[in-house]
Amino acid sequence: MSLFGKNLICTQDWSIDELLLALNLAVKMKKSRFHSEWKTLLDSKTFIMLFYNHSLRTRISFEAAMLELGGHAQFIMPPMLRLQTNTEAGETVQDAARVMSRYAAGIGIRIAEAAIPYYGAGNNLMADYVKWADVPVINMANDYYHPCQGLADILSWAERYGNGLCSPNFESLKNKNFLLTWAHGGMARTWGSVHEALLLASRFGMNVTIARPDGYDLDPQVYQTIAKNCQMHDTAFTTTNNHLNCYENAHVVYSRNWMSPHAYKDNVFQKEAEIKFAMEKKEWITTAEKMKKTDNAIFTHCMPIDRGFEVTDEVANSDRSVIYDVAENRLHVQKAVLALSMSQRFLD
Amino acid sequence: MSLFGKNLICTQDWSIDELLLALNLAVKMKKSRFHSEWKTLLDSKTFIMLFYNHSLRTRISFEAAMLELGGHAQFIMPPMLRLQTNTEAGETVQDAARVMSRYAAGIGIRIAEAAIPYYGAGNNLMADYVKWADVPVINMANDYYHPCQGLADILSWAERYGNGLCSPNFESLKNKNFLLTWAHGGMARTWGSVHEALLLASRFGMNVTIARPDGYDLDPQVYQTIAKNCQMHDTAFTTTNNHLNCYENAHVVYSRNWMSPHAYKDNVFQKEAEIKFAMEKKEWITTAEKMKKTDNAIFTHCMPIDRGFEVTDEVANSDRSVIYDVAENRLHVQKAVLALSMSQRFLD
Amino acid sequence: MSLFGKNLICTQDWSIDELLLALNLAVKMKKSRFHSEWKTLLDSKTFIMLFYNHSLRTRISFEAAMLELGGHAQFIMPPMLRLQTNTEAGETVQDAARVMSRYAAGIGIRIAEAAIPYYGAGNNLMADYVKWADVPVINMANDYYHPCQGLADILSWAERYGNGLCSPNFESLKNKNFLLTWAHGGMARTWGSVHEALLLASRFGMNVTIARPDGYDLDPQVYQTIAKNCQMHDTAFTTTNNHLNCYENAHVVYSRNWMSPHAYKDNVFQKEAEIKFAMEKKEWITTAEKMKKTDNAIFTHCMPIDRGFEVTDEVANSDRSVIYDVAENRLHVQKAVLALSMSQRFLD
Repeated sequence: MSLFGKNLICTQDWSIDELLLALNLAVKMKKSRFHSEWKTLLDSKTFIMLFYNHSLRTRISFEAAMLELGGHAQFIMPPMLRLQTNTEAGETVQDAARVMSRYAAGIGIRIAEAAIPYYGAGNNLMADYVKWADVPVINMANDYYHPCQGLADILSWAERYGNGLCSPNFESLKNKNFLLTWAHGGMARTWGSVHEALLLASRFGMNVTIARPDGYDLDPQVYQTIAKNCQMHDTAFTTTNNHLNCYENAHVVYSRNWMSPHAYKDNVFQKEAEIKFAMEKKEWITTAEKMKKTDNAIFTHCMPIDRGFEVTDEVANSDRSVIYDVAENRLHVQKAVLALSMSQRFLD
Repeated sequence: MSLFGKNLICTQDWSIDELLLALNLAVKMKKSRFHSEWKTLLDSKTFIMLFYNHSLRTRISFEAAMLELGGHAQFIMPPMLRLQTNTEAGETVQDAARVMSRYAAGIGIRIAEAAIPYYGAGNNLMADYVKWADVPVINMANDYYHPCQGLADILSWAERYGNGLCSPNFESLKNKNFLLTWAHGGMARTWGSVHEALLLASRFGMNVTIARPDGYDLDPQVYQTIAKNCQMHDTAFTTTNNHLNCYENAHVVYSRNWMSPHAYKDNVFQKEAEIKFAMEKKEWITTAEKMKKTDNAIFTHCMPIDRGFEVTDEVANSDRSVIYDVAENRLHVQKAVLALSMSQRFLD
Repeated sequence: MSLFGKNLICTQDWSIDELLLALNLAVKMKKSRFHSEWKTLLDSKTFIMLFYNHSLRTRISFEAAMLELGGHAQFIMPPMLRLQTNTEAGETVQDAARVMSRYAAGIGIRIAEAAIPYYGAGNNLMADYVKWADVPVINMANDYYHPCQGLADILSWAERYGNGLCSPNFESLKNKNFLLTWAHGGMARTWGSVHEALLLASRFGMNVTIARPDGYDLDPQVYQTIAKNCQMHDTAFTTTNNHLNCYENAHVVYSRNWMSPHAYKDNVFQKEAEIKFAMEKKEWITTAEKMKKTDNAIFTHCMPIDRGFEVTDEVANSDRSVIYDVAENRLHVQKAVLALSMSQRFLD
């Protein structure tokens, strides 16, 4: 089994064995982070990072990952590239992707929220790069998916329910209860991270509950895939609009603000309207009291956290919070994904 | 013969032997791109890239080139540097260039189009850096010249008329017919790339034809140099305003939009007026039909291509199109130039 | 004595022995800049550079320093990070600093002038990073201090009054006369660099004179520390508003424009008002004539220099000018500081 040359747009595109290959390599890399072995994997190789949107974790962790693999990640904001837009002449994705393939071993793209005119536009652009590039395209977060975030989530949960850091037990997640709950807040977030957490939780055998106010459902097609994943494991997939009872018996709690399905109008992301609407629902926040209803659940989040809105400081800072481990695991899973897809060492 | 410490502002400043030294090293580097030998040439050395203008190929390929030579290219947009401007107090080029020389092994500059107030201003700024810097200055495209583009062009043509990739035959270009034709389009391009192609084509013994509508002549001083180059080889240098007949017997066709000699007014680049005026001349485009008039010519372009305006998709995507090879060769010739001018290995 | 894990916000926080450890390592690194020994010190390690303000020397020299130590510096403009601001929801410093600590071996921050709403805000932000980060925080210039600049200053002076480049004699500075004089100019500079020069000059046993027009005093608390430093060495600390006599018997002259204590109003940096007011005081400039009053003083400056306002070309370009050596020494002292604080090699 080789992942050399493989794109990573959504974890659902990879088999469980492929995902475990990446996750297990990530654990090895985490155990001996600066071992000289990793440094030769992508020696002198370039990874192009196209950031249509701002980022802290994704940018820093991908750039560090390439360094630790012996290569280099170029940080590029696409307006610097003179690409074709709706209003200006410029280079096509066809030409950009084919030229980049001559220089680089892989291309990463981040695009969502205000950088796109409608839901799906980010994933469409990425599909266009996949079509034309001769090297792997890695999704660094789009409107649909955020695969590296999902891998970091699942690894962190499996560490906590396994034997601790660097000793995950993915089997331990089976039949555990995963609660994803919408939260109010001022960031109007894209769906990529939560979609990916749902897909992987269901894929690894967890019961899945989505709690959200009416009108805040996520993508119906993703719901169908989650349902299918749950069916395979004979686990439950539930949605509820109860912000309180949903915590009962949960083992993993993920509370996060996300935009409504009506966030794009007239080709513009209606960020302020979304925030205004979301901020009214003040009861949608994870608190210590609510956490008491759970089965001693861990608290997880992809960050950045909107403290005081999505979750209280008390919960975010508690011993059961895995937020910083999740952030750190971004680095390790990305190192594994980059190495497996781009290093000829893994070609055999 | 050593190129250590040498600037590269225009290929015409280098002797044919110096150019061939760089081109032949580029071919060796292309043959074994990731050979460990190259990695030590600029080990730990910094190359400063000042991008007054946006770029895809130049930025990515120079940054990759430095990585592959063991060093690092810093991507810098000059507004970040607090340099003196017409309206604001700041650092002089004298001080900036001398300080940079303490930190870096070389300085690259890209400046043209909207970043300058008049034709020649970019080349003047570069001359000022050359005056004060103690390290080589590499022209990464200015209003006059784009030497690395020219080297990539000539290498790609010599590969096609030689024995294929990595087996260029520069002699094979002698007495071949080079057609540079203006094209309509929405980008109002600077003259650097086409000047450089003309200079090198004439330098390597090709007959040169420039086809352009009346009013679109390039720099008269460059024309004189081309004429002189052609005289040395006893080849022809012709200009025409016929967008059709010019293709006859051509071996290399380069169609590109460029700005008129009146593109700067009142110290401002009149981009929109240029585009409006250019877009009227719809017959100026390279098509498959026109290509049939040639002697099975290859199609070349520095990119980005304004598809549908400068050239049809059919021609750009054809087997005779060398556009992606040209783009790739940017990397290899730049690696050679950087190594030869900045590595003490080549000092003897 | 180990500096591993230590922050560097102000040189006053470090003992003289700690400063000398860094300075002496800097000299060793300068002597053999590209020796393979340094390359392994921070192999594969990431240094995060947060630039709230623009920079030439600081950015290029820190990025080159990390390269030469085997690691990589990430250039980040904080608006790219989605951090919490007064008007927008976003990530807290607590979360940002703790996450960065998982990825990087150190964090550098530059913040002053128009990037802050009041004097002290930059240093406060840095203190917040120090509070939460698990890795060293290096001050790359703030409104209070600029420690790496101060170290480069003192090294360059000690080279000139010692046995030349790479042979500094720090003892030679004892009882020498240091003149810091305000100068007019169009840049309205922050106080960090001059504070640091004053603190180190007094710390290394020099007599200190500050010449400035009435109304241009620096931080009273820093004055107190300088006085205390001078008391320990039994040296003099004087202030004067005489722009002429102050040069008498000086051994080191540093002329620089700085903002008045009233530069911030209503949470906005009043740059234009400051420049207008400063530009009236045309007599405040260092000239060759004034330098004749000194004891053959060297001229020093942190750059960028506002030539013709802060100092004449004649003085800046003279043999006694150490400006480019100071700039170069930034690189060497920063390599030493980064290595000592971040490399486990120095942990014993």
